[in-house]
Amino acid sequence: MNAAVRAVARMAFARHWEAVGIEAGYRGLLEGQFQPLSNRMVGGILQRGGTVLGTARSTEFATPEGQERAARKLEKAGVEGLVVIGGEGSLTGALRLQERGVKVVGIPATIDNDVWGTDTAIGVDTALNTALEAIDRIKDTASSHQRAHVVEVMGRRCGYLALMSAIAGGAEAVLVPEFEPRREEIMRAFQKSWEQGKPHFIVVVAEGAPLSAEEFHEFVNEAGGGVESRITVLGHVQRGGSPTAFDRILASRMGTAAVKALSEGASGMMIGLQGRRMELLPLSEVVGRSHPLDPDIYEMAEVLAGFPEEVSYR
Amino acid sequence: MNAAVRAVARMAFARHWEAVGIEAGYRGLLEGQFQPLSNRMVGGILQRGGTVLGTARSTEFATPEGQERAARKLEKAGVEGLVVIGGEGSLTGALRLQERGVKVVGIPATIDNDVWGTDTAIGVDTALNTALEAIDRIKDTASSHQRAHVVEVMGRRCGYLALMSAIAGGAEAVLVPEFEPRREEIMRAFQKSWEQGKPHFIVVVAEGAPLSAEEFHEFVNEAGGGVESRITVLGHVQRGGSPTAFDRILASRMGTAAVKALSEGASGMMIGLQGRRMELLPLSEVVGRSHPLDPDIYEMAEVLAGFPEEVSYR
Amino acid sequence: MNAAVRAVARMAFARHWEAVGIEAGYRGLLEGQFQPLSNRMVGGILQRGGTVLGTARSTEFATPEGQERAARKLEKAGVEGLVVIGGEGSLTGALRLQERGVKVVGIPATIDNDVWGTDTAIGVDTALNTALEAIDRIKDTASSHQRAHVVEVMGRRCGYLALMSAIAGGAEAVLVPEFEPRREEIMRAFQKSWEQGKPHFIVVVAEGAPLSAEEFHEFVNEAGGGVESRITVLGHVQRGGSPTAFDRILASRMGTAAVKALSEGASGMMIGLQGRRMELLPLSEVVGRSHPLDPDIYEMAEVLAGFPEEVSYR
Amino acid sequence: MNAAVRAVARMAFARHWEAVGIEAGYRGLLEGQFQPLSNRMVGGILQRGGTVLGTARSTEFATPEGQERAARKLEKAGVEGLVVIGGEGSLTGALRLQERGVKVVGIPATIDNDVWGTDTAIGVDTALNTALEAIDRIKDTASSHQRAHVVEVMGRRCGYLALMSAIAGGAEAVLVPEFEPRREEIMRAFQKSWEQGKPHFIVVVAEGAPLSAEEFHEFVNEAGGGVESRITVLGHVQRGGSPTAFDRILASRMGTAAVKALSEGASGMMIGLQGRRMELLPLSEVVGRSHPLDPDIYEMAEVLAGFPEEVSYR
Repeated sequence: MNAAVRAVARMAFARHWEAVGIEAGYRGLLEGQFQPLSNRMVGGILQRGGTVLGTARSTEFATPEGQERAARKLEKAGVEGLVVIGGEGSLTGALRLQERGVKVVGIPATIDNDVWGTDTAIGVDTALNTALEAIDRIKDTASSHQRAHVVEVMGRRCGYLALMSAIAGGAEAVLVPEFEPRREEIMRAFQKSWEQGKPHFIVVVAEGAPLSAEEFHEFVNEAGGGVESRITVLGHVQRGGSPTAFDRILASRMGTAAVKALSEGASGMMIGLQGRRMELLPLSEVVGRSHPLDPDIYEMAEVLAGFPEEVSYR
Repeated sequence: MNAAVRAVARMAFARHWEAVGIEAGYRGLLEGQFQPLSNRMVGGILQRGGTVLGTARSTEFATPEGQERAARKLEKAGVEGLVVIGGEGSLTGALRLQERGVKVVGIPATIDNDVWGTDTAIGVDTALNTALEAIDRIKDTASSHQRAHVVEVMGRRCGYLALMSAIAGGAEAVLVPEFEPRREEIMRAFQKSWEQGKPHFIVVVAEGAPLSAEEFHEFVNEAGGGVESRITVLGHVQRGGSPTAFDRILASRMGTAAVKALSEGASGMMIGLQGRRMELLPLSEVVGRSHPLDPDIYEMAEVLAGFPEEVSYR
Repeated sequence: MNAAVRAVARMAFARHWEAVGIEAGYRGLLEGQFQPLSNRMVGGILQRGGTVLGTARSTEFATPEGQERAARKLEKAGVEGLVVIGGEGSLTGALRLQERGVKVVGIPATIDNDVWGTDTAIGVDTALNTALEAIDRIKDTASSHQRAHVVEVMGRRCGYLALMSAIAGGAEAVLVPEFEPRREEIMRAFQKSWEQGKPHFIVVVAEGAPLSAEEFHEFVNEAGGGVESRITVLGHVQRGGSPTAFDRILASRMGTAAVKALSEGASGMMIGLQGRRMELLPLSEVVGRSHPLDPDIYEMAEVLAGFPEEVSYR
Repeated sequence: MNAAVRAVARMAFARHWEAVGIEAGYRGLLEGQFQPLSNRMVGGILQRGGTVLGTARSTEFATPEGQERAARKLEKAGVEGLVVIGGEGSLTGALRLQERGVKVVGIPATIDNDVWGTDTAIGVDTALNTALEAIDRIKDTASSHQRAHVVEVMGRRCGYLALMSAIAGGAEAVLVPEFEPRREEIMRAFQKSWEQGKPHFIVVVAEGAPLSAEEFHEFVNEAGGGVESRITVLGHVQRGGSPTAFDRILASRMGTAAVKALSEGASGMMIGLQGRRMELLPLSEVVGRSHPLDPDIYEMAEVLAGFPEEVSYR
């Protein structure tokens, strides 16, 4: 996200505008935590993980009154255009502000990659590589034939991160919120995998999967027969780390595009990546919809796991 | 590339086909270096850098006679469909084979990212992150106000890697083959950067830039006034390293899509990424064209460097 | 460990000896899984995580009969000298074999770093850097003032990895098997940390700590007051990954030193790193003892956390 | 280095002392660039590469008058104890200040690892891992049999970094300032390496080696026979990057030990790592001496390269 903040600020300066950062999200907006940005201040933040502006949840902003108050706050502060960087919740907030007269452009940033209207969102690529690194490391030592490794990755409602890290890491199975696995078949796949002499059995599980990481872990450990399961819970490790090149470039392009859009009079729009290009879409079309997981890619994950065809837990 | 080989093989096995790897590219094809692939063999290659099949140049294959002989070689070996993974040269070869009756599908893989018809090619993302890591490290210590750091990255004809790593790394300037910089202006930008109190001046230079890394390096060192320049030449460091999540997923998707295309009777086509989807394009449209560098992104790089507007070397 | 295998083999070849790898540890030894090693075979293993020879537990080898049979197996195979690479268990086994007439030299390799007689063991540095990377990433986003982050790292009996990664990562607290923390004080430290305005509270917990990661996690979540805890369980992630420079150099030096020791007639000895030098110690002195955690370093961890002096959970 | 600054500050606060950072080294000392440090300020610097205090060379401080003026400056500022972090030059400066009545303790920090009296210095491990990563990446693609890869690493007078990264990376040869290689033999080793079918030939060259990276590069390219050489010059990449666990722990221990030493009345001493312990040595013994490269390790590098015994360039 820092790369987007820097891009917005530098693009604003290039247009002789002032730039102000709002700390701690909508809560900070309501509390008036405005921080004027300078060219120098945004100079060293590009490679840092997290966000220098901070994030926070606001219950007040969830109400129409809170939204109204936020809009007035911006007006009083003389803010002529607002760039909102965030996921579904933040973008919905942006739409609410636009409805109250604020000129606003949204930038999608969420590791779930479920924002409609963009190929991908800021943060996805970095989180994916972090999860992948963990899977790669587990694979290095996962040479005992009677051991399953369960890796829990983020994703309460969306299995994108789990599915993609499973494919990139060469996991044997993946469990996501969007699809209900056949439990017995998963266990059969696991057993088949020993008979094939596979050196490992790695299952990537999204937080919100119907069969949770903890459940699968216990399921294997209780199955008997000398079989063991080991668990890894990545947690907030996935939210940090210096951003990848892809994320920094995406954020830089989206940030500059947002300022350009504002300067051309756009409002109530979101910047989306479509192919090689940045496009503008109405926030009203984006909010309330979400990009579903591609079932073909879910199927591909199983093909790539290399099981014989009678094995399928889908 | 290994991820693509694995995906092609596993997708083939899922269709009850046999899969054979050809080692050392077109030279290996002419020399008959065919290696039958098994499910197990492709199991551990996903996270490895480089390519297990090797690469090589072939002068013989560049001739019509060589191409004819290669086509016959494939015929005799009973190869019913060929997947070619590579850049402009490899894809041109694929087209030549198709013209000689070989069923062939191409997959774009080159760190230059200049293949027409695809948003990106296998290898670009990994090389970009490697170059970025080097720039990040230089930035950490680049705190002496009178020092320029020159980083040479790959790209003889194409500045994509240089431009994108400069943006991602927050470099002050970038020199690419596609655009001729104004030499005096670059030096002025460098001097301006001290006056502004910038803690570093990093220039990313593509191998084929009109002003080479070595030339700029000497230019600064000879300018006098206690100014020094330090040089980093990344060389083949950029071609290795465990592939990123993006590259592994892209390769997995392209590899399975190529086998699917062959099974549906396609030939003389290339798999291209367009937005979130894989598309098929005729190789004849791809070969001979190349994806040019986007001048808007070149301009954005300068905006993001944060110079006052009278400074521009473009 | 691969670096040690390569060093043993190459040093043996330099002495015109043959080298044989025993797969799957003592179990493989009893089952006769001997694999002749060649110069080429050990060429590409240096940068790989895990061990190409595999590991396994053997209940048979734990008995005197098993040990006797293993000794005879080596004799029949014509093995004139054995290098054993591993932790306390493996080194004890080495001593048992020596007592049965096998010429043996041990090399300490365990991520617990509790082997007596050596400054450090193979694997410690790599595991430490992996744990550190996770902590660094958590720190990037750990900016919510009312959240604790609990990170479970390996160490059932030994807190070395937890303590050192806590220091390297700048964690606020660390829980290890060797010391009983004062539970109320830990919670007070946590509360104090918000009052001080600390942007994060990270606790590193060894698997075998008296207050487990799960317990501390629940303790915080149940404390009320809007406080949340997030958990990360690193698990086997810590056992993999390409080894660090330190580990590869250590393994290379220990491997060559072991062959040199055998060639000079040593047996029943272990190679230990002491300062800049490799030393030989009797296995009988090493086995049964262990290197205790340094209480001064445990104290230092608390000093470095930067709490006011009335805060201490030790 | 930041880890050492943080440790010194936090250990000082634990003793109810104030802590002041001096920016830009001895030059900053002469110019009075004193920056009071707070608990919070040193909180986020642990994982950052480079040094927050900056470095600079000072010609004035090299003179007795400059040293005298520096000592008075410290006196006037009420500095009761000084911790100097740096290499040979900085430690010599520390001794000069001590001779002028300043209470001073030194901490060795240099990527050359040539400081006498300590097993290793701050920064060595991080630089080593950076160089190693580059070599690993080159190895991934170094599969063309008639290509040499030359990697230049830092070390004008000292070959430690080159030697150790060559061993860790499995390079075929290493050229260091301390030993004169036999030029024809190096070329023979290179040719022998193809005949053996080795997939790569990597030479690590220290900046100050008698045969420079550029010279070896040209030597190979001019040798004819289709042989090519590729060069990588790492430059300042080696000075940056988030410090490794080893370096952060070393710096933390040395920083706290330095404050402890000052509080116990020590002066004119250096903290050295010896085995698992921190020791105090007189700066007068350290300055003017240097830790030589171990010829046994230089020899080991050649053994590990796995050449037949008639090949030796030493």
